[in-house]
Amino acid sequence: MALYVQKFGGTSVGTVERIAAVADKVKSFRDAGHDVVVVVSAMSGETNRLLGLANAVMEDPTPREMDVLVSTGEQVTIALLSMALNKRGCPAKSYTGSQVRITTDETHTKARIQAIDEQNMREDLKQGRVVVVAGFQGVDGQGNITTLGRGGSDTTAVALAATLKADECQIYTDVDGVYTTDPRVVDTARRMERITFEEMIEMASLGSKILQIRSVEFAGKYNVPLRVLSSFEDGPGTLITIEDDETMEQPVISGIAFNRDEAKLTVQGVPDIPGIASKILRPISDANIEVDMIVQNIGADNFTDFTFTVHRNDYNKAKAILEKVSEELGARKVSGDDKIAKVSIVGVGMRSHAGVATQMFDALSAEGINIQMISTSEIKISVVIAEKYLELSVRSLHSSFGLGDDKEEA
Amino acid sequence: MALYVQKFGGTSVGTVERIAAVADKVKSFRDAGHDVVVVVSAMSGETNRLLGLANAVMEDPTPREMDVLVSTGEQVTIALLSMALNKRGCPAKSYTGSQVRITTDETHTKARIQAIDEQNMREDLKQGRVVVVAGFQGVDGQGNITTLGRGGSDTTAVALAATLKADECQIYTDVDGVYTTDPRVVDTARRMERITFEEMIEMASLGSKILQIRSVEFAGKYNVPLRVLSSFEDGPGTLITIEDDETMEQPVISGIAFNRDEAKLTVQGVPDIPGIASKILRPISDANIEVDMIVQNIGADNFTDFTFTVHRNDYNKAKAILEKVSEELGARKVSGDDKIAKVSIVGVGMRSHAGVATQMFDALSAEGINIQMISTSEIKISVVIAEKYLELSVRSLHSSFGLGDDKEEA
Repeated sequence: MALYVQKFGGTSVGTVERIAAVADKVKSFRDAGHDVVVVVSAMSGETNRLLGLANAVMEDPTPREMDVLVSTGEQVTIALLSMALNKRGCPAKSYTGSQVRITTDETHTKARIQAIDEQNMREDLKQGRVVVVAGFQGVDGQGNITTLGRGGSDTTAVALAATLKADECQIYTDVDGVYTTDPRVVDTARRMERITFEEMIEMASLGSKILQIRSVEFAGKYNVPLRVLSSFEDGPGTLITIEDDETMEQPVISGIAFNRDEAKLTVQGVPDIPGIASKILRPISDANIEVDMIVQNIGADNFTDFTFTVHRNDYNKAKAILEKVSEELGARKVSGDDKIAKVSIVGVGMRSHAGVATQMFDALSAEGINIQMISTSEIKISVVIAEKYLELSVRSLHSSFGLGDDKEEA
Repeated sequence: MALYVQKFGGTSVGTVERIAAVADKVKSFRDAGHDVVVVVSAMSGETNRLLGLANAVMEDPTPREMDVLVSTGEQVTIALLSMALNKRGCPAKSYTGSQVRITTDETHTKARIQAIDEQNMREDLKQGRVVVVAGFQGVDGQGNITTLGRGGSDTTAVALAATLKADECQIYTDVDGVYTTDPRVVDTARRMERITFEEMIEMASLGSKILQIRSVEFAGKYNVPLRVLSSFEDGPGTLITIEDDETMEQPVISGIAFNRDEAKLTVQGVPDIPGIASKILRPISDANIEVDMIVQNIGADNFTDFTFTVHRNDYNKAKAILEKVSEELGARKVSGDDKIAKVSIVGVGMRSHAGVATQMFDALSAEGINIQMISTSEIKISVVIAEKYLELSVRSLHSSFGLGDDKEEA
């Protein structure tokens, strides 16, 4: 007898038929004697339909009213799923964010959860009911409806699991788990049985879009075991959990993430004086452009080169700003490239293994791939390379670190 | 400076363009210095879309979840209208039924309002905001979402107007007022400037489907002046108010209502003994069939005829029940007719004028129309006639009582 929080996204509840399939799955857990709290998103397409209505009314819709509007999407789903469960003789009761009382701050369209009242849910579980909660939404201290931002349903599920001390928070998606890398790029990519929160955060932020990074951070913070599974087929999925010292043969590298959404910009020949980095980056951040990797080499002759990456959509805007800044600073020139890719190897195992970076650089070098930038963290090494080498580099690293599931590799 | 509660139905807010037109109208009242509370329905078609989803999930959907589901319809509209008002520089704030705190009983899908908390609305009005409230919905004592049943948005508007002591509750519809009779039947039908609550109730229940009868009763009880106007064109509409003794030349008859949805059934030759009416009607009401008119003549030779009307859709079912009952009671036979129409003249003036019934019967007789049943109340006389005479009878009564707006009549 365990308590599960199960989250089903928009695709999993996209039609009346799929809602019926979700009800069957939830019922199978109830029939096995478990308690279940279900968190659902809006039916796929619904949120966009509502956003379309809002934008047709007002160019920059009032955030408070935006939340009133889009929160109806999940409200429809909780009602339909509760009906489908009741129809199956599986008593269920729906809750909006406000009805649970998921209290958030007042930041409309991207609110943060502050507190969850578990009393009513506990009572329903005790009565043998499935509790069906609207994801993505809450209520502020004044009773205004708030939303947590896109992907907020994952956050709702993890927050409920933490509050209720659930045995597991299960995130049902359209993939059957977290893979060592994208199977569309490497056909021997393997589903991981298990991955740590830290690794998942690096994988998620590097372009594996299965889980919202915020919800993984949250799960890690409260140590809520998180499992990614498929809504459409049976299988164990991937368990995201704390680092387990008992696990034998901890692999050095867990997975390979990549990202082709970035562009790189370099200011060459800037005077190597204190404060130069902030002089270059402040105008970029003032323009609301997010910066990812930053590399500055040790300068020679009191001059240095300063390189960073931005989202490819911001490339032209950032370049124009830099050219102005460069002139003011007396830099030699601004150069850039939006045909790049970032490839990262991730794994808690690299903490205790020297030589991981060398192995990575060797593998790339063996394929004749030039490394343009390098950036490292404790459990990750990222490199920027020419975009055309992306697939080749991911395949060669996947093979070099023995991540595949068949004999051709490792 | 007055306080208006303005209600816009589903057709009036059926598209983004129409919501914009409603915002313009509301703003014109604000610009004139008035306080405005707006009550809106779901965009036309939306409630049916949601009902369709529910019925696809479950044949007989859980009432509690039905209310969670359909209440999203109005929630979408309040958000969009508030945005449209904000866009026009007219600050507005939306409220769900639960946010106002419109407390109802626990009867899901047809709840009754018990209390309304006016505090937040008062504060917003004081701050110069338009208050936009979702019609049709409330919340029970346990925080469950409830709905008031079809047409409940009118009830919400009247209840808010009563609570806030509004100067007028304006119901915007697709007609420009209440007419002396259906203009499609009598082309000289005239919009009434004014009608009493009692008359409106008789008109509404007899087939003029402009306002929900419950909301008119409610308005009468709390003496809330009610005005029916067009959403689409300007004009004074029709004011529904208490009887005004100062009004000179109170007409004897205000309007003529009719209804072709009924069928009549007669049990002939039943023993004229106490309790016979209930013996006949109980099985009908047990079968959830509503009975409208009931007529029993004084019997001769200890036998009597008992006649009543039901909705035409219930005719065959009621007839089958009656034939069984008739046998048990030893009645002579059961006969019926579903090609009938009911025509009623309504007016508070008839209280003090004798001879109204005579004038009505004379007018019908002059056209050779046979009266099959008669039923009267203090301010109404209804007759049942053959359906084929419906238009002729309405036109002749309209003319006889001088209701038209041009010289050809009266």
